[in-house]
Amino acid sequence: MIVNGKSVDLNCDFGEGYGAYSFGQDAELLKYITSVNIACGFHAGDPHTMRRAVEMSLAAGAAIGAHPGLPDRLGFGRREMAVTPEEAYDFTVYQIGALSAFVRAAGGRLQHVKPHGALYHMANSNSAIAEAIVRAAAATGDSLMIYGQSGSLLLEAAQREGLAVASEVFADRGYERDSSLMARSKPGALIADVKQAAEHAVAMVKNGYALTVDGEKAPVQADTICLHGDGPHAVQFASQIREALLKADIRVEALGKK
Amino acid sequence: MIVNGKSVDLNCDFGEGYGAYSFGQDAELLKYITSVNIACGFHAGDPHTMRRAVEMSLAAGAAIGAHPGLPDRLGFGRREMAVTPEEAYDFTVYQIGALSAFVRAAGGRLQHVKPHGALYHMANSNSAIAEAIVRAAAATGDSLMIYGQSGSLLLEAAQREGLAVASEVFADRGYERDSSLMARSKPGALIADVKQAAEHAVAMVKNGYALTVDGEKAPVQADTICLHGDGPHAVQFASQIREALLKADIRVEALGKK
Amino acid sequence: MIVNGKSVDLNCDFGEGYGAYSFGQDAELLKYITSVNIACGFHAGDPHTMRRAVEMSLAAGAAIGAHPGLPDRLGFGRREMAVTPEEAYDFTVYQIGALSAFVRAAGGRLQHVKPHGALYHMANSNSAIAEAIVRAAAATGDSLMIYGQSGSLLLEAAQREGLAVASEVFADRGYERDSSLMARSKPGALIADVKQAAEHAVAMVKNGYALTVDGEKAPVQADTICLHGDGPHAVQFASQIREALLKADIRVEALGKK
Amino acid sequence: MIVNGKSVDLNCDFGEGYGAYSFGQDAELLKYITSVNIACGFHAGDPHTMRRAVEMSLAAGAAIGAHPGLPDRLGFGRREMAVTPEEAYDFTVYQIGALSAFVRAAGGRLQHVKPHGALYHMANSNSAIAEAIVRAAAATGDSLMIYGQSGSLLLEAAQREGLAVASEVFADRGYERDSSLMARSKPGALIADVKQAAEHAVAMVKNGYALTVDGEKAPVQADTICLHGDGPHAVQFASQIREALLKADIRVEALGKK
Repeated sequence: MIVNGKSVDLNCDFGEGYGAYSFGQDAELLKYITSVNIACGFHAGDPHTMRRAVEMSLAAGAAIGAHPGLPDRLGFGRREMAVTPEEAYDFTVYQIGALSAFVRAAGGRLQHVKPHGALYHMANSNSAIAEAIVRAAAATGDSLMIYGQSGSLLLEAAQREGLAVASEVFADRGYERDSSLMARSKPGALIADVKQAAEHAVAMVKNGYALTVDGEKAPVQADTICLHGDGPHAVQFASQIREALLKADIRVEALGKK
Repeated sequence: MIVNGKSVDLNCDFGEGYGAYSFGQDAELLKYITSVNIACGFHAGDPHTMRRAVEMSLAAGAAIGAHPGLPDRLGFGRREMAVTPEEAYDFTVYQIGALSAFVRAAGGRLQHVKPHGALYHMANSNSAIAEAIVRAAAATGDSLMIYGQSGSLLLEAAQREGLAVASEVFADRGYERDSSLMARSKPGALIADVKQAAEHAVAMVKNGYALTVDGEKAPVQADTICLHGDGPHAVQFASQIREALLKADIRVEALGKK
Repeated sequence: MIVNGKSVDLNCDFGEGYGAYSFGQDAELLKYITSVNIACGFHAGDPHTMRRAVEMSLAAGAAIGAHPGLPDRLGFGRREMAVTPEEAYDFTVYQIGALSAFVRAAGGRLQHVKPHGALYHMANSNSAIAEAIVRAAAATGDSLMIYGQSGSLLLEAAQREGLAVASEVFADRGYERDSSLMARSKPGALIADVKQAAEHAVAMVKNGYALTVDGEKAPVQADTICLHGDGPHAVQFASQIREALLKADIRVEALGKK
Repeated sequence: MIVNGKSVDLNCDFGEGYGAYSFGQDAELLKYITSVNIACGFHAGDPHTMRRAVEMSLAAGAAIGAHPGLPDRLGFGRREMAVTPEEAYDFTVYQIGALSAFVRAAGGRLQHVKPHGALYHMANSNSAIAEAIVRAAAATGDSLMIYGQSGSLLLEAAQREGLAVASEVFADRGYERDSSLMARSKPGALIADVKQAAEHAVAMVKNGYALTVDGEKAPVQADTICLHGDGPHAVQFASQIREALLKADIRVEALGKK
């Protein structure tokens, strides 16, 4: 079906609880997003949480991705660790495999891989780590798509390997002129106002660039917008960003449906 | 190909190291055995150890099985834990998935599932746990075979589910008249002499029964013989049992080749 | 100082978060309780959570106890595991030591030890486990008090070893005629109504017995009342039980202040 | 007691097994060394291994140190992680506390703290991490000595805090002119020949400097020599280095006995 106009995917980290611990507002968010990145037991998640997250996501029609992280549950996968590319490959194969078994068992299909936290950031700027993650996705043999930050080495590595990619932007983060994210310490780096974040999201999808704090155009490719599942206003953010996109005649749909 | 005579598989737990720790004599044992049960990261094993174990096994032509255990690395999966059938299912799906990704990545095929340690023992005698493990193997969708103790509830559950089974006997363990293993505390429970263990193995394959300490016949089905990969004499045991089987005109080959 | 009338301690499990995960309403509860049982990193808690929990407790004037659990973070220490008494001893020494270092570093004193979850239940009914925990507390050499269920083998073991004990009752649990807790599946086992729980608590302290569902007197010794820190009504329960005790002229104070 | 001549301590990492896994040759090494650094459960070690390591060390008369590491058992604490000074402090307090409880329970006294692996290296060159470790040792209140690399920021931080220090050298590592260790990739960085290593050790103790590969004098303070407990020749290295020291009229004794 050929349709006119723009479309975008809304993705959210998902299934990040552990045992007795819950994290984020998974059930509510599923009403507004179109794809999920499910934690695979290293930085968060456990076999029970993963199974339930997969079942909830399939029931809601969301596309499912694996969200592999560093083996640092205490640090929620947010601390960089000096892992080798070979280690990154092995961690990623393991986690994709574990999650995809739950997806298969529930009758679904794994769509994508998006590394988590410090592994995501390492894959933005370290090409050997980026390649290791891509090779892991390719080796598991399910035509997996790679989600990565717009302009990142991870997306470049995926394209070289012949994998489909989804270029990701952040509704609640400001961009530098070179299209990188602003450091969190800078004024304008974090967009806490939901209306402003929604406008930022709509503009990136429509225009293909983000406006910097100085009013410059920073080119970005917005195939998918990352929303945050935790925080007190996560659900409100998701619903209002979705609504703003729809009002701007942008379809909100999973990438596989394009 | 139709062949006369008996055949048997020799299996061994494999890849049970962790990080800087090694365990067992994997490389040496591969010369004598025909299938391996690779630890999947819960009771032992880690992504790197798993990848290397898979690669070594494929290179040696051994059939590969997943060896899921309880989430108790400190206890090496040997301590019973009060897990529910649902938890056992989730643990097993996760671990099969993780290992099978490495097997796929290396161009192989996962043949079987054999639970480890306390999970193996629980699956012998607790039908809800046995069924959970079988459902997990079935749900991952790769026509997995179940390895279980001869006469166990695990094998019964697998047959009800329509999965292929391999009935396992122990060369170095004495049997009770009801075909159960003797308690380790009883005289005759542990067969430390390699010549005696080899004769025991040959007799079980040939005759379809084990002789108890009282000279009674305890029926057993010996599709596969479990050898131990650790201990100072593991390699000697494996080589001499293999040799004794061959001398008795019993083929030693993986089950998939029957 | 000799005072007339009754007094009781109110204790609550504490510091049961882990890394990015929070659990329970620690800060609010400190207004109402007089002692805390701080998780030590096995079933819950981590070094940062422990340090903060210790500092908060000392600031609020609460007496501090170690809350050692089984090494099962995924199961929150609630699943029984087949651990030996020697293992229970080692687990308990380790966890007491870790927590007491934070207490010392903050200028406080560790008052007591209360095992968590499955370890608590095992210590109620398994005298070898009970003795192992008591020996661990005695071996660390700080005159630690043992908190245990009224009538439990744990308290008997502590008294044989010469340790001070605090006999614990539950405001929200019904009792059998033999003074054991009713199984959770029985009607009347769980007291969800806060007013009823408060009356139950007051009665146990005043009378020295609990009334069973049949109106029988089940003797209990109420040195300390266990309140739950999680659940949506935890703070309301704590505040109303405290208020009911004070109205009944029962002082609410830590045991060391008796 | 005033004695003439030089003396030196020989230290070795100890108790680095985990559960079913052993590591190094602890029992044999105790014949030759005078102090041990016992793993505390983060990078290696567990409550049972720790208790046994403490008991063996006390029986052999070795001085006992805590050997805290990063929370990375899979990486054996050898991978750098982006931990904050506050996290390093908390990790160190926790691990010192856990080990010191076993030492107290066995009737001994904890002598020192030596960080392990990546934490050791971070403490050499990152003063905030060095200070965090020192504050943790000071806060536990047992007059702990700090073992650190000769010339490291860790020893400087300990001296500023008023803690006793032991300056450590490596028998099997070559030194740069600035007294740092040679990078492992350089020729001469690793001294595999035991006779050469023994001469290197004797010379550092006697002369107060190491000779670089270019024959320059690199000043070092050799209060204690680090021996490695793993590797096939660990025991031979320890015995021959000890013998060479004794032949050179250098007493081999724990630092507390000076």
